[in-house]
Amino acid sequence: MSDLSMIHAAADRLAGHARRTPLLSSPFLDEIAGRRVLVKAECLQHTGSFKFRGGWSAVSALPPDTRARGVIAFSSGNHAQGVARAAQARGAPAVIIMPADAPRMKIDNTRALGAEIVLYDRETEDRDAIGDRLAAERGLTLIKPFDEPQVIAGQGTTGLEIADQAAAEGVTEGDVLVCCGGGGLTSGIALALEGHAPGLRARTVEPEGFDDVARSLATGSIQRNARTSGSLCDAIVTPQPGEITFPILKRLCGPGLVVTEAQALQAMALAFARLKIVLEPGGAVALAAALFHPEAVQGDAVIAVATGGNVDPAVFRDALARLEP
Amino acid sequence: MSDLSMIHAAADRLAGHARRTPLLSSPFLDEIAGRRVLVKAECLQHTGSFKFRGGWSAVSALPPDTRARGVIAFSSGNHAQGVARAAQARGAPAVIIMPADAPRMKIDNTRALGAEIVLYDRETEDRDAIGDRLAAERGLTLIKPFDEPQVIAGQGTTGLEIADQAAAEGVTEGDVLVCCGGGGLTSGIALALEGHAPGLRARTVEPEGFDDVARSLATGSIQRNARTSGSLCDAIVTPQPGEITFPILKRLCGPGLVVTEAQALQAMALAFARLKIVLEPGGAVALAAALFHPEAVQGDAVIAVATGGNVDPAVFRDALARLEP
Repeated sequence: MSDLSMIHAAADRLAGHARRTPLLSSPFLDEIAGRRVLVKAECLQHTGSFKFRGGWSAVSALPPDTRARGVIAFSSGNHAQGVARAAQARGAPAVIIMPADAPRMKIDNTRALGAEIVLYDRETEDRDAIGDRLAAERGLTLIKPFDEPQVIAGQGTTGLEIADQAAAEGVTEGDVLVCCGGGGLTSGIALALEGHAPGLRARTVEPEGFDDVARSLATGSIQRNARTSGSLCDAIVTPQPGEITFPILKRLCGPGLVVTEAQALQAMALAFARLKIVLEPGGAVALAAALFHPEAVQGDAVIAVATGGNVDPAVFRDALARLEP
Repeated sequence: MSDLSMIHAAADRLAGHARRTPLLSSPFLDEIAGRRVLVKAECLQHTGSFKFRGGWSAVSALPPDTRARGVIAFSSGNHAQGVARAAQARGAPAVIIMPADAPRMKIDNTRALGAEIVLYDRETEDRDAIGDRLAAERGLTLIKPFDEPQVIAGQGTTGLEIADQAAAEGVTEGDVLVCCGGGGLTSGIALALEGHAPGLRARTVEPEGFDDVARSLATGSIQRNARTSGSLCDAIVTPQPGEITFPILKRLCGPGLVVTEAQALQAMALAFARLKIVLEPGGAVALAAALFHPEAVQGDAVIAVATGGNVDPAVFRDALARLEP
């Protein structure tokens, strides 16, 4: 099981390899939200998302002979890049199974990081089955994107940094909004905050129509999404919360939040204008909730985790068009 | 005169107020440049550029009664925002003289930070004369954008951070490329490196057609630009290097580098794709030189200072169009 000691151990393995990303802010965003907004800019992490933390944590935790046989991962792109770069740096072969409709930039980048890419159809094929088969055939170790204790521990190092950085800003109470797919990052952050910043509470944020975690938290049992394609927020669309992550979310998180795609695009535009960072739609939903759902958030300050920035230029240009007169 | 002790004193005044911006990198950029590229992301500084450092340094160095009467600054936008925010935070009135053709975002932001804005025509009016008159009439203290020791000292704190961060990356020799207007940032960084990282050498980078500093360094005496409007790189277009800054540049910097506007736009697009940061054209010329003029740079690693990100969305969308097929 995942716990705080595993997060500390992951932080030790990540030291000198992962970036300690900054906690950014702007008086213009504070004014929109009606409270202080602090943005943990994980888009500035290696490979452009927090996923590098979990990838490195999992790859570095493997025994050397197991690691040398290689790893396999399935991902819409950010976990793929995180695992590929970690594997490359540790000299392990990597096979990445990606949906055929993932943003081209994510597919290209993952290949450029030395990984072998296998594409599948989100609607008709079962990525778990493909992963299991390849892992068995080649002796690869499967690194799941979220329901894997060492991955959760790696993502949880984000929470250790948030606890420190928020305290340095005088913020010890309030909500920490996290863009949520399967719940690996949110559950890791929730465990880190429980140990180091008990006044801060993790909250999941999802796009409308893909709110399996919010419905699962509301009903108390795991709910599935009706569909898993067709969202601009591809990075955080998963069939359902994880078997390991959901009990942690249920125990530690407040109710889930939901934003529209239009709100995510508007948050991307504001992050461009006010913070000078690049966010992808799925990496902007937490900031969107902080800015556009202030009534659903508690505290004088809110922390939003900006989870990733791997966005195709055309989508970003569309978001920027919202700033023009 | 500016010296290392003034930079240290400015760093003390800035502690807890300015951000320590990250030093970013990407294997994709290293591949283009043919060497390691480390990017000091000052676009993530408060107000979106390094200018906040100099503004805070100068405003905080004033005696309280002088500060209470207010400050005045002239700027195409980034110095304006830096001074405005510093003045607002220290309770001082601020008057900012801006060119009428400055990006609208910079004018709007400066006004929103509580400053009174006075617009002038770059081609027909003398901003120094306007500043002197208003300062005299209202008892304001003029904070020049670069030829002012406390401003140079504030910008120089960037160099202290670069020295530390580069050493942590194992880089102690090579060129530090700096987007250069009047030379305040470059001269401050050069002084800091002289004291703390003598193997690192500051180099100025300017846009083609506005290369007064490169020509001044080549001839050994101050040269002027033929014109001071019409550049996309508005943030770093000044009539000539400063009387205080130029002797420092001449003593400590290597030959000046020049890039095209097209190269600056391409560097903005690559910073978007690979670093997830937003740069303005004038803030991207140093990265452009690192990527597209590798023959003019020395060392196994190059450091590029990404000085600002206050860009109108339409210009940024134009830069992104260069990434599309």
